[in-house]
Amino acid sequence: MIPDLVTQIVIPACAVVGIVFSLVQWFIVSKVKVSSERNVNNGGGSKNGFHDYLIEEEDGGNDHNVVAKCAEIQNAISEGATSFLYTEYQYVGVFMVAFAALIFLFLGSVEGFSTESQACTYNPFKKCKPALATAIFSTVSFLLGAVTSVVSGFLGMKIATYANARTTLEARKGVGKAFIVAFRSGAVMGFLLAANGLLVLYITINLFKLYYGDDWEGLFEAITGYGLGGSSMALFGRVGGGIYTKAADVGADLVGKVERNIPEDDPRNPAVIADNVGDNVGDIAGMGSDLFGSYAESSCAALVVASISSFGINHEFTAMCYPLLVSSMGIIVCLITTLFATDFFEIKAVKEIEPALKHQLIISTILMTVGVAIVTWVAVPSSFTIFNFGTQKVVHNWQLFLCVCVGLWAGLIIGFVTEYYTSNAYSPVQDVADSCRTGAATNVIFGLALGYKSVIIPIFAIALSIFVSFSFAAMYGIAVAALGMLSTIATGLAIDAYGPISDNAGGIAEMAGMSSRIRDRTDALDAAGNTTAAIGKGFAIGSAALVSLALFGAFVSRASISTVDVLTPKVFIGLLVGAMLPYWFSAMTMKSVGSAALKMVEEVRRQFNTIPGLMEGTAKPDYANCVKISTDASIKEMIPPGALVMLTPLIVGTLFGVETLSGVLAGSLVSGVQIAISASNTGGAWDNAKKYIEAGASEHARTLGPKGSEPHKAAVIGDTIGDPLKDTSGPSLNILIKLMAVESLVFAPFFATHGGLLFKIFS
Amino acid sequence: MIPDLVTQIVIPACAVVGIVFSLVQWFIVSKVKVSSERNVNNGGGSKNGFHDYLIEEEDGGNDHNVVAKCAEIQNAISEGATSFLYTEYQYVGVFMVAFAALIFLFLGSVEGFSTESQACTYNPFKKCKPALATAIFSTVSFLLGAVTSVVSGFLGMKIATYANARTTLEARKGVGKAFIVAFRSGAVMGFLLAANGLLVLYITINLFKLYYGDDWEGLFEAITGYGLGGSSMALFGRVGGGIYTKAADVGADLVGKVERNIPEDDPRNPAVIADNVGDNVGDIAGMGSDLFGSYAESSCAALVVASISSFGINHEFTAMCYPLLVSSMGIIVCLITTLFATDFFEIKAVKEIEPALKHQLIISTILMTVGVAIVTWVAVPSSFTIFNFGTQKVVHNWQLFLCVCVGLWAGLIIGFVTEYYTSNAYSPVQDVADSCRTGAATNVIFGLALGYKSVIIPIFAIALSIFVSFSFAAMYGIAVAALGMLSTIATGLAIDAYGPISDNAGGIAEMAGMSSRIRDRTDALDAAGNTTAAIGKGFAIGSAALVSLALFGAFVSRASISTVDVLTPKVFIGLLVGAMLPYWFSAMTMKSVGSAALKMVEEVRRQFNTIPGLMEGTAKPDYANCVKISTDASIKEMIPPGALVMLTPLIVGTLFGVETLSGVLAGSLVSGVQIAISASNTGGAWDNAKKYIEAGASEHARTLGPKGSEPHKAAVIGDTIGDPLKDTSGPSLNILIKLMAVESLVFAPFFATHGGLLFKIFS
Repeated sequence: MIPDLVTQIVIPACAVVGIVFSLVQWFIVSKVKVSSERNVNNGGGSKNGFHDYLIEEEDGGNDHNVVAKCAEIQNAISEGATSFLYTEYQYVGVFMVAFAALIFLFLGSVEGFSTESQACTYNPFKKCKPALATAIFSTVSFLLGAVTSVVSGFLGMKIATYANARTTLEARKGVGKAFIVAFRSGAVMGFLLAANGLLVLYITINLFKLYYGDDWEGLFEAITGYGLGGSSMALFGRVGGGIYTKAADVGADLVGKVERNIPEDDPRNPAVIADNVGDNVGDIAGMGSDLFGSYAESSCAALVVASISSFGINHEFTAMCYPLLVSSMGIIVCLITTLFATDFFEIKAVKEIEPALKHQLIISTILMTVGVAIVTWVAVPSSFTIFNFGTQKVVHNWQLFLCVCVGLWAGLIIGFVTEYYTSNAYSPVQDVADSCRTGAATNVIFGLALGYKSVIIPIFAIALSIFVSFSFAAMYGIAVAALGMLSTIATGLAIDAYGPISDNAGGIAEMAGMSSRIRDRTDALDAAGNTTAAIGKGFAIGSAALVSLALFGAFVSRASISTVDVLTPKVFIGLLVGAMLPYWFSAMTMKSVGSAALKMVEEVRRQFNTIPGLMEGTAKPDYANCVKISTDASIKEMIPPGALVMLTPLIVGTLFGVETLSGVLAGSLVSGVQIAISASNTGGAWDNAKKYIEAGASEHARTLGPKGSEPHKAAVIGDTIGDPLKDTSGPSLNILIKLMAVESLVFAPFFATHGGLLFKIFS
Repeated sequence: MIPDLVTQIVIPACAVVGIVFSLVQWFIVSKVKVSSERNVNNGGGSKNGFHDYLIEEEDGGNDHNVVAKCAEIQNAISEGATSFLYTEYQYVGVFMVAFAALIFLFLGSVEGFSTESQACTYNPFKKCKPALATAIFSTVSFLLGAVTSVVSGFLGMKIATYANARTTLEARKGVGKAFIVAFRSGAVMGFLLAANGLLVLYITINLFKLYYGDDWEGLFEAITGYGLGGSSMALFGRVGGGIYTKAADVGADLVGKVERNIPEDDPRNPAVIADNVGDNVGDIAGMGSDLFGSYAESSCAALVVASISSFGINHEFTAMCYPLLVSSMGIIVCLITTLFATDFFEIKAVKEIEPALKHQLIISTILMTVGVAIVTWVAVPSSFTIFNFGTQKVVHNWQLFLCVCVGLWAGLIIGFVTEYYTSNAYSPVQDVADSCRTGAATNVIFGLALGYKSVIIPIFAIALSIFVSFSFAAMYGIAVAALGMLSTIATGLAIDAYGPISDNAGGIAEMAGMSSRIRDRTDALDAAGNTTAAIGKGFAIGSAALVSLALFGAFVSRASISTVDVLTPKVFIGLLVGAMLPYWFSAMTMKSVGSAALKMVEEVRRQFNTIPGLMEGTAKPDYANCVKISTDASIKEMIPPGALVMLTPLIVGTLFGVETLSGVLAGSLVSGVQIAISASNTGGAWDNAKKYIEAGASEHARTLGPKGSEPHKAAVIGDTIGDPLKDTSGPSLNILIKLMAVESLVFAPFFATHGGLLFKIFS
């Protein structure tokens, strides 16, 4: 067992290492110059072993105009993204402040804003800090979580928009060079996020401890606000960004590709900048906030359960910090893993990209298994007790190790299954592509069926992890299993962010008028990126399921109910209505994308019809107007779904009480997971079925193509339908289930005291 | 309180009245002659007040050739349907016998096939019949239920194929005449089914009583096999019929409408007969079996709970028969309701059709409310006790009345909401139609969003009925609420069967080469039928949710577990996997429709390409080959989804035990309801959005049309995607959730004794 002092040093040290590593990566990326001077990174290349030029340079490689044009486009994208995020944060900021006030009022009212110490919840013989203190500190940690989430999303976006043109320029030198720039930039985001989240949480705990002292129960109850803040921000980020990106994407495609028959990302299309901005605010900033939220929540869930277990009761600081130590180890493991892609091996051909990314997952999982074993061995006593709905359950350290590992490996399985169902290297996507022969209808039918089918194995994997970790260490086991799945978050985010960066790089190549060979290279990067995006979503939803369950368990403990019996009317109606919520939410978000896309279509059509010379390329379209339409639509449309998620726990808890709320949480969890997985895989499969036909890499694919053939048109329709499924409603559902659970947990003291008004009135 | 003797007379009397009434309707329909003689029903018309001829007769009204052609087509459809059902029943028959053997073995093994009397389950001081008797009688009632279901489906199909050409011929005289023939034929099916189901159940109970005597606990436990038999048959009917009809429909449309640009139901299309056969085996026979199954199961669930409540313990026969008395009253109420459509009022114009059908729902619900009050007042003591998971709960008769009514009225609300979301008279469908302007992709996005949204109110309605009936009378309350919703089944089925009959009538008009005015009239009937079909599916799923919950409750009681706590790992993983099952099932059925449709497309294309003169109408297509493809595909493809549903409870119960199985039942219930409602409404909305554009009844609709315009093509794609959703996977999900619940109940004694092997081995 390591002493507490070592723990106090190791955790921030690992976080700092992560931050430094990401800065180093950033520095390396920054050597690719995006300015009118001659690109000079040949000299710097020696440091990274970039000696051999895989493919001869393009003829236009020295063309200053191309570089200048890339810089200009990059600026436009970056400005659009920054301006959208500022607008979004302004609106959400108002909401956050209002919600913070609500938290303070609700939690403060539990003991009537009394400043006197009260009996502890789980140990009535001890005195704990007043409910008012919990109210204040929960509010503070809520705001901290929200700010950290904003910073995570914003930095991710900045890095991505910094890297996209650089990837394009490197693509002139070969696919390997371009890959490494895109991947390094993804790593910057991954490490910054993981380290930042850990560091802020660690500092907050230590600061709060100055006030709380020995009252760990109150301390970690207040810390849960951090998770709530992170997830609330993530909700708006995902929904707003998702609507933004898909309104632009669908709008651009419907007029550009379908009506005007111009290629994707053609600079003549007025919505093209908005589309590229969307990738950055939706897939990058949204995903960053989302995974940060999961990470913060699973840490909070583990900590709050630990605080009322033997770690907390006996004040074993190192053991208490086990969740943070696992995350610290995760940063080191991911750091080593990243070197495998950037320094130890080298990508020489297109077909090596997908395996390289897959190896990242495998390597990080194997190394992390060893890492978890070490952490568990040095930080956890050989046996301890965990709070389990009113009783203390004895757990051995090897059981805890297995809990973390089962989550870690379940994540890998989910990743591989997702890859199988969304990569066009395997038969499921090829079958979907084949069904395009008979038109869009069969494509949609096969795609939906594929999505439904892809749910089966991930659900069994999640069910198995829940069973193992629940049996071994109750709710604590579930929470650390979720942490296990998220421990390799830095690598996960790196390969995830890599996708939209490559996508943007392709767009910039097209807009800058670079040769089709460059575009082919970025397309190859992007196709791999589609699959990794689906894998990332798989991780996000898998971990969200575990996290929500852990939070749900913590909520039930805190709300002082001992069983959640399905066979009581209060619980069952909650279960039924909870299972309905993801549908309601999806209906809202999909309709929002649809309406916003219709507006975009009208604007794009208007520009094509009224701006003379636009189709001929002699006049420039009004990009800014399209950016404005996406911004306005997403800001306006994110409010109703956001309100649905944020208000449901408050309304149900206040009016119907904790039993019904438990039902709602369980129902939305088990139903939401399925829709989220199937939606994101269906969308990914349609996208890659289209790319399969376009690339024409096999005999079979060539019989379906080329671009513009009837099967290809059918595939484009499927791709467009999949857009809101995979990038708006699907991934937002993770947040729905997590957020409702963490919100219930934060408000649990209030619901336990004042909840269930309606039933109280009638009985 | 009426004496037991009166009860013994009233129930079979009502059933006989229902059967006689349906025979009378049949007789009236049969007066429309489908033969080469002159149509002579003018004389008979006086009896029904058909004096005024709404619209002058068509010129071709006397054309013997047209009548002969109708007769010929009707024969072809009837033969195709009969031959498919025979084939289906052969395969399913083998399965049923095998499953009957399984029931006998599993239930017989509970007490090791001992023939000695045993202590009763709920009253250990009394002696009950041996488990072997339960095994034998359960097996017998299972087979009886299966046979009754077969008879119900088969008769429905026979009547529908008898009525379709008659509707076409009557359409020559006006839309009102045609409506009345279609509606009467639907009524034949509705009354025959309701009365037949009641009579067989009543006779079975009385026969079993000869053996069981005073052991009502054992008697009604054995009776539950009746529900299982009915639902097992319904599963294969729905899935097989659903695949058949949609493979043919999708295949016919994809080549005929999309590629060859010939109208729907064109006799040149080789799949046209298969398509019309499909309507009869899928929508008629499948729906008939499904609703019969719901009816049988809710009766069984109510009876089995009543048998261990005060009714059963004190042997109050009349009160015990309350569920059957409610159904008897339902037959009488529906009989009066039917007269409102056929005799009291008259349809004079197209726009009166939908209101007339809607009035049927309202009238039957209002009358039934009075009827239920009467039955409750005369048959139920003012207060009694109901078994509630180990305790006896006191219930007053007015509470029981409210339980039935809440189900009845929730059904009406679900019906109206469904109408709102699927009828093209309201804005949701019009919005979907409008989104076709920007192509198929937005149509699909809006349609999916509409389906998701349409779930909200029905779920609240179901949740409210569950809460009220559960709070008042525990599981018995839920069961009678389901019975309340199904009490107007005869009317529901009549308006439901009316749809496919009209659809077929339109097909026959087209194929017989009748004038477009006739086709317009049948199209108007059919558009109303689409909405009523969606309403029927709404009823089916709403009642299925209630029935499943009641069965689930009965299962939990019988399996001797007192709580189903979500926060135990065994239950939670069941919940999660249960919520996944509807996705797995939908993936299978949708893929089946897709693959079968692809085969159909190939065959239809082959015929168009190889049969000279087919497109010109000089050569006849090979209809039989298409019928064979649909038959073979549906028989082959119905086995995997059927096996999934039938085997899951057996495997889970045997290996993981009753707690996990409880979770699976609850999970599949809350998740399946949502998918079923959204799938059937999405499909209905797409279909009617297409019809909205085609009919061009409003200024807005005309801007989208006419047939063949780009928006119309997009609408056709949506319609095709909706086909498997609304007619195959959606409605089959009702059966999935009901069947798993009733199967668990029947096998409960076995699971309680020998279940959970896996956990037993490991612990």
